[in-house]
Amino acid sequence: MPIITDDEASPRVKAVYDDIRNTRGTDFVNNLWRVLANDPENLERTWSEVKSVLAPGALDPLIKDLIYLAISTNNSCTYCVRSHTASARAKGATDQMLSEVHAVIAAANRTNRLAIGLQVPVDEVFQ
Amino acid sequence: MPIITDDEASPRVKAVYDDIRNTRGTDFVNNLWRVLANDPENLERTWSEVKSVLAPGALDPLIKDLIYLAISTNNSCTYCVRSHTASARAKGATDQMLSEVHAVIAAANRTNRLAIGLQVPVDEVFQ
Amino acid sequence: MPIITDDEASPRVKAVYDDIRNTRGTDFVNNLWRVLANDPENLERTWSEVKSVLAPGALDPLIKDLIYLAISTNNSCTYCVRSHTASARAKGATDQMLSEVHAVIAAANRTNRLAIGLQVPVDEVFQ
Amino acid sequence: MPIITDDEASPRVKAVYDDIRNTRGTDFVNNLWRVLANDPENLERTWSEVKSVLAPGALDPLIKDLIYLAISTNNSCTYCVRSHTASARAKGATDQMLSEVHAVIAAANRTNRLAIGLQVPVDEVFQ
Amino acid sequence: MPIITDDEASPRVKAVYDDIRNTRGTDFVNNLWRVLANDPENLERTWSEVKSVLAPGALDPLIKDLIYLAISTNNSCTYCVRSHTASARAKGATDQMLSEVHAVIAAANRTNRLAIGLQVPVDEVFQ
Amino acid sequence: MPIITDDEASPRVKAVYDDIRNTRGTDFVNNLWRVLANDPENLERTWSEVKSVLAPGALDPLIKDLIYLAISTNNSCTYCVRSHTASARAKGATDQMLSEVHAVIAAANRTNRLAIGLQVPVDEVFQ
Repeated sequence: MPIITDDEASPRVKAVYDDIRNTRGTDFVNNLWRVLANDPENLERTWSEVKSVLAPGALDPLIKDLIYLAISTNNSCTYCVRSHTASARAKGATDQMLSEVHAVIAAANRTNRLAIGLQVPVDEVFQ
Repeated sequence: MPIITDDEASPRVKAVYDDIRNTRGTDFVNNLWRVLANDPENLERTWSEVKSVLAPGALDPLIKDLIYLAISTNNSCTYCVRSHTASARAKGATDQMLSEVHAVIAAANRTNRLAIGLQVPVDEVFQ
Repeated sequence: MPIITDDEASPRVKAVYDDIRNTRGTDFVNNLWRVLANDPENLERTWSEVKSVLAPGALDPLIKDLIYLAISTNNSCTYCVRSHTASARAKGATDQMLSEVHAVIAAANRTNRLAIGLQVPVDEVFQ
Repeated sequence: MPIITDDEASPRVKAVYDDIRNTRGTDFVNNLWRVLANDPENLERTWSEVKSVLAPGALDPLIKDLIYLAISTNNSCTYCVRSHTASARAKGATDQMLSEVHAVIAAANRTNRLAIGLQVPVDEVFQ
Repeated sequence: MPIITDDEASPRVKAVYDDIRNTRGTDFVNNLWRVLANDPENLERTWSEVKSVLAPGALDPLIKDLIYLAISTNNSCTYCVRSHTASARAKGATDQMLSEVHAVIAAANRTNRLAIGLQVPVDEVFQ
Repeated sequence: MPIITDDEASPRVKAVYDDIRNTRGTDFVNNLWRVLANDPENLERTWSEVKSVLAPGALDPLIKDLIYLAISTNNSCTYCVRSHTASARAKGATDQMLSEVHAVIAAANRTNRLAIGLQVPVDEVFQ
């Protein structure tokens, strides 16, 4: 799928690029959006969801980006690991925070497989 | 694999059960540990890692539990989803926080598959 | 594992390469088969299955290739995403069709994780 | 998370339930929506996406449901496998079609792992 | 999908059931085969592959069953974890062997996610 | 994350590098450890687990490495597939053994998805 540059963007696509720039406070629009722009409806739907889901709420936007990074790691998505490491850093993630995130991801994958492989029965209190 | 009760626990296993109780400030030891207790070395190694990884650090223990929950969801691990939802609530997670976590997990899985399926090239700035 | 060229192929391997060419109506044999050719039995078994599974049936071969692409995306298999995008296009997939496939994959991953993470109970009618 | 019945539904949630009923031509609203209803914004966003993504387009709605089923199988999501098998049948899927879908899913998972495990290099023509 | 009993089995299905019994030296035919029997071609293809793949070769059949169990754990497949734990035990797997398998699975999942999450570059010597 | 060379290694990191060299009987320390070295505690914990888990026990170290390779394949981890193929070969894995491992991985993924997609009920004897 081609990358849609600013010059090639239709007004509908341009509006999304502009909203990405405004929301993030940067002029940079990364390739995920430029590829999705080949299907403007999917672009709008995806950006609208990501913008809403990563906005401040009961959880801090940085925390949300770290959870995004955790899922991306589990899905073996190189693009997503790299882009969400970058966005987490832009929101203030330190080396120490990232190390702790990766340690939690690693530990969770370890115990998840033990729970599944050993067929641990759910405790009554968790039902 | 059988569930090892307190009465059946060897001193080595008993020591881990006690440390779980002390660390969490509760008398309850859930089934994951009681199944792992069939292999004391794996029990010690796993508890030692989980205790250390979930301890306060650059990230709050609650945040770490939410990341644990996210990974458990992605691994389709029923036991882990239920136990880490419970432990996150015990550490103060509200309904709103859990809703936001699940919204982030869902959005991340959505865009991860788009990035992989559309073979989005990594932006130079993320290299 | 080395790539087995036509010149290096044993008669047993050559027979599979020929059947791939005849079935697909092209002279091109892609690398998956040329790597599998290091183990002729696995090559025969795999090709025989793929040929049979992707043949016309109650579902159109193009539809089957789109399902193949969906699974490949979920397995984060770069090789498979690229080769099945190519073969789907060769069977008539349009940009619009591929966009819709990726939108369905993305939506399914999103709701799957919500169903698992929120531990939605199976409706009686689905049992 | 509790199941939100019709009686407990706020007007905002009720509007989504009504749209689900109208779109599907049935009075039945399955549990996924009733659990999501605890977070009305996520309910609206998710239903709006699923409704749009599964609507007729370049691909038939039945085909889209079969792709949804394929992804659900790969994510080991019991709820999703059962509900999308039911909805595919409601749209006309026959036993034979479902058998072929599962045969394709199985074959794709088989070759995906061979491509990854044997590190098959991407053919130049697929780049 | 219904379970096909011996009485309901067509001659074609009966032949596979008989081969399963002969190969395994037991009268028991487990549900996977009885469900696959709804699609006799898929039944034949699947049994033929599993029989061939698990036969003695450069690796012992027990070792192959342990690898099968490892993959089943990673796919969160309850049926497969339970059936391959049973078949591994039938081939001589001890509690200690199974504990070691689960420890390796757990450790591999842990380091895999670290390698992916930290984007560890492939060493030249591994290229 | 930067690669920590021998010259940049703190005494704590140096001690782990030395233990890796001694345990493996080689001067080569691969990149996974050199990246983990940015977080010495995680480096120590990870190496200590891997060293212990892959040591001789009821199962041969080569068999453990093959299981490690199987999991790495299922997690779509390029780094891990390449490094554990190399370490399995260093422990005596032949082409034939590796072929059989990949055939088992492929077959397991195939039947796992059939069991999940067809919702095969667990046999009473496996409960």
